[in-house]
Order: sequence, then structure tokens, then C-alpha cells
Amino acid sequence: MSTILPLELVDRATGSQVWVIMKTEREFTGTLVGFDDYVNMVLEDVTEYENTPQGRKTTKLGQTLLNGNNIAMIVPGRGPEDDA
Amino acid sequence: MSTILPLELVDRATGSQVWVIMKTEREFTGTLVGFDDYVNMVLEDVTEYENTPQGRKTTKLGQTLLNGNNIAMIVPGRGPEDDA
Amino acid sequence: MSTILPLELVDRATGSQVWVIMKTEREFTGTLVGFDDYVNMVLEDVTEYENTPQGRKTTKLGQTLLNGNNIAMIVPGRGPEDDA
Amino acid sequence: MSTILPLELVDRATGSQVWVIMKTEREFTGTLVGFDDYVNMVLEDVTEYENTPQGRKTTKLGQTLLNGNNIAMIVPGRGPEDDA
Amino acid sequence: MSTILPLELVDRATGSQVWVIMKTEREFTGTLVGFDDYVNMVLEDVTEYENTPQGRKTTKLGQTLLNGNNIAMIVPGRGPEDDA
Amino acid sequence: MSTILPLELVDRATGSQVWVIMKTEREFTGTLVGFDDYVNMVLEDVTEYENTPQGRKTTKLGQTLLNGNNIAMIVPGRGPEDDA
Amino acid sequence: MSTILPLELVDRATGSQVWVIMKTEREFTGTLVGFDDYVNMVLEDVTEYENTPQGRKTTKLGQTLLNGNNIAMIVPGRGPEDDA
Repeated sequence: MSTILPLELVDRATGSQVWVIMKTEREFTGTLVGFDDYVNMVLEDVTEYENTPQGRKTTKLGQTLLNGNNIAMIVPGRGPEDDA
Repeated sequence: MSTILPLELVDRATGSQVWVIMKTEREFTGTLVGFDDYVNMVLEDVTEYENTPQGRKTTKLGQTLLNGNNIAMIVPGRGPEDDA
Repeated sequence: MSTILPLELVDRATGSQVWVIMKTEREFTGTLVGFDDYVNMVLEDVTEYENTPQGRKTTKLGQTLLNGNNIAMIVPGRGPEDDA
Repeated sequence: MSTILPLELVDRATGSQVWVIMKTEREFTGTLVGFDDYVNMVLEDVTEYENTPQGRKTTKLGQTLLNGNNIAMIVPGRGPEDDA
Repeated sequence: MSTILPLELVDRATGSQVWVIMKTEREFTGTLVGFDDYVNMVLEDVTEYENTPQGRKTTKLGQTLLNGNNIAMIVPGRGPEDDA
Repeated sequence: MSTILPLELVDRATGSQVWVIMKTEREFTGTLVGFDDYVNMVLEDVTEYENTPQGRKTTKLGQTLLNGNNIAMIVPGRGPEDDA
Repeated sequence: MSTILPLELVDRATGSQVWVIMKTEREFTGTLVGFDDYVNMVLEDVTEYENTPQGRKTTKLGQTLLNGNNIAMIVPGRGPEDDA
């Protein structure tokens, strides 16, 4: 079984879809187009998912920069609506 | 597909409108006029968006410095009222 | 359009009024008389604004040192009661 | 009794199942395939466990990167449903 | 107008009364007798002010060390009961 | 009276039982088998104690790695059920 | 008036009783037997004070290591039950 280092996973995901969950429970999907050593991430064609009292809200955001120290998890290759 | 590093995105956005969402859920739009390595940001012609019990409140702030470690997301080129 | 770096904005504001909003939602106005690299700030002729259950409370504080890592935003040249 | 250093435990667990509990109370099981000095961790065949008002929810996530500074505990070799 | 750097303000206050407000809203007055680069502070003849459900509570503490990273504000030369 | 430095206490406790209280109020007992400079700790034969609405819950965990920056207190030589 | 630096206060208190208040409002008294540069502290003959819905709870803990970054205040020479 080959090992995958954290930044390798992010690097391999560059150019494809990622699902990013923040510590504040906000979620995003989009195409990963760049990142730095702090795993600040630039996504394109972004959709934001938010749980609001009125239910699940989605917002189209286009290009977005996410602050790495606020990211809890990154799931490459899918989104919250897809099955594993 | 060309990659865009986080500070590149901020650099390219200099001189144009950005939408900044803080960890405290406060939101701002304004013209980005400067930033540093900690992504502390100077905006001009700033509008602040706040969710209050009485509904959505907007405040005109003029020139403003935002503390980078309190920023969750940056969306260049638009604001909360625009469609993606 | 000329760029303004964060510490430049603070430097230019030295000697004039600033409005400082903390992460704890406390707000202050006063004359900025000094700051350091961590943007700890010394203000004079300070007024503190607090939202209390009894409404908006203001307190005169004279000279005050504010801890930079608790500051969310700095708005030079005005206060919460002024229009932009 | 031989001592086991923290990173040794993580290293030995590479390639086998781990149960990871986050500071936000989210829990994950999966095969550990890589980690770095900050104990950011790459897991495969991941199941997420969440306590929701409707009860215990599990989600299949496939490959996932977990932010090390959000991890509270790591239990190698088992999951929340197994007895010790 | 002469500038005053943050550590200068603290240095000048050494030997006199200071009012210290913590991030947890606890407040203290006392004579500042020493501090370090992290603005950890040693006070003497200390009075603590706490807002409790039963109203404002004051406690005499004598000599006290306050953790600098928990301090929000320092007001030299007065206390919460004095007018500016 | 001989002084004991923090890492000395942890070192001396290696191989014996420790009671660890986290900042999130979760508690653990187990045999300390290793630690590093950040006081990340590896315990064996671990029991977890949790206060739940249904009362005090204990879980057997076997070998466990605890994140040092989440630890509030360490009490060597006993557990929550023992008298001092 | 002689100045006392923070680590001097802690050093002088070594071997005698200290009252330590944590950021989580937990309080401890005990004999200080050692500390390090991060003001992690080893106490002996420790009593813990906790405010619970059922009132003030005290627990005897014996020897205890307290995580310095969780400490809000240190009061040498007394405890919460003594007058200043």
C-alpha cells in the first residue's frame, strides 16, 4: 500500500474537484487551482453549502480563497451530494 | 488549467472589488488597495454586511483595515448581493 | 490607484482619530498615538462603545492600550456615530 | 515496558485502521495512508460518525485529509463500534 | 504630538495604578510592579471586579500575576469606578 | 523540598497510571508509555470518562494518542474514582 | 518600589502555596514545586475548586501538572477561601 503525504493529496487534487469542510461547518465544492504551505486554497466554480434554520442553502461563488487555518477536512474528487 | 497561488489571487485582486467574509460571519465589500504576508487587508469604499435580529444591516465605512487572522474567505470581483 | 499596506494605514493614522472594533464586539474611538509590529495600539481621549441589554453604553477612558491580537478591524478618521 | 513516542504510534498505524476524534466531536475511521509532522493525516475508505439531533449519522467519504490541529485523539486498530 | 509605543505605556505605568480588562471580561486594578515582553503583568494591592448574576463582586487579591495572552486592554492611572 | 519540572513529572510517570483531563472536559486514565516535547501522550489500557446527559459514561479504548495542546491537566498515579 | 518580573514572582513562590485560576474558571491551590518557561506548573497537595450546579465542589488531587497556556492568573501565598 503506497503512502500519500497530506500535501501530496492536495497537490494531486489540483485541477480537479474537492469538497472542503471548514471548522465553522461551512462546506464548499469547487476546482482546486492552487494552494500554499499553510493549505490556504484557491478554488474555482465554487458552490457553498450552508445549514440554515430554513434548511440547506447553496450559493454559487465563482473563484474563492479559503483560509487554511479554518479548514477541518478536504475530500478530493466528490461533494456532499455524491455517494462515496 | 493554470494554477493560482493564494497570494497571487489577492495580488491580482488589488485595485478591484473583493468580498471578504470573517470568521465572526461579518462580511465586507470594497476595493482592495493593499495587503501583507499575513493577508491583513486595506479596503476602500467599504460596505459592511451584518445579520442582526432586525434583519440584514449595511454600513458604509470608507477606508478599513481587516485583521488577516480573522478572515475566513475572500471572493474577488463580486459581493453578497451579486449572482455568481 | 496607489496601494496602501496595512502598517502604512496605521502609520498614516497616527495622531488622528481611529475607530477600532475588537473580536469581542467592543468598539473604541480615540487618537492613535503609537503602535507596534503586532498592531498593539496606544490611543488617547478614548471613548468605549458597548452593546448592553440596557442599550448602547459609552465610557470615557483616557489613555488606553489595546491588545493587537484581539482587534478585528480599524477604521481611520471616523467613529461609529459618523456617516461614512 | 517499551516506550512508544507519539509519532511512532502514528507511524506504526500507517497502513492499518485508525479511529480519529476531532475537537469538534466529529469522529472518523479509515486506513491511515500518510501523515506529516503536524499530524495532518490522509485516510482512505473513510467513514464519518456524527451525533445529530436525529441520532448517530454515518457517511462514507473515501479518501480524506484531516487537519492535524483539529484532532483531539487517535485510537489505532479499532473504531467507535468495536469493544476495546 | 509625541508618539507612545505600547511597551512604553506599560513601562511608564510601572509603579502606579493600572486597570486591566481580560478577554474573559474579568477586570483588575492594582499597582503594576513588573511585566515582560509578552505583557504578562505582576500587580500588587489588587482588586478584582466580576459581573455575577448577583451583581458586581469585588475581591481583594494582594499580589497577582496576569497571563498576557488573556489581556484585552490596559488603562493606566485609573479604575472602573473613576471618571475619565 | 526538591523541585520537579513539568517534563520531569511526565517522565517519572512513564510506565505508570496517569489521569489526563482535556480542555473539552473529557477525562482519561491509562498507562503512560510515551510523550514528546509538545506533551502529546501515548497511553495504554485506556479508560475514557465522559459526562453525558444520561450520566457518567466510561469507554475502554486500549492504546490512545492524546493531542498535547488539548490537555488541561495531568494527575499522575490515580484516576477520577480514587481518593487523593 | 522594587519591580518584580513575572517569572520572578513564580520563582519566589516555588515551595509555597499558590492559587491558580484557569481560563476555564477551574481553580487550584497547592504547593508550587516546579515550572518551566511556558509557566506549565507542577503543584503538590492540590485542592481543586469547581463551581457546579450543585454548588462549590472541592477535590483533593495530590501532585498535578497544569498546562501553562490554560492559566489565566496566579495568586501566590493564599487561596480562594482566605481574605487578602
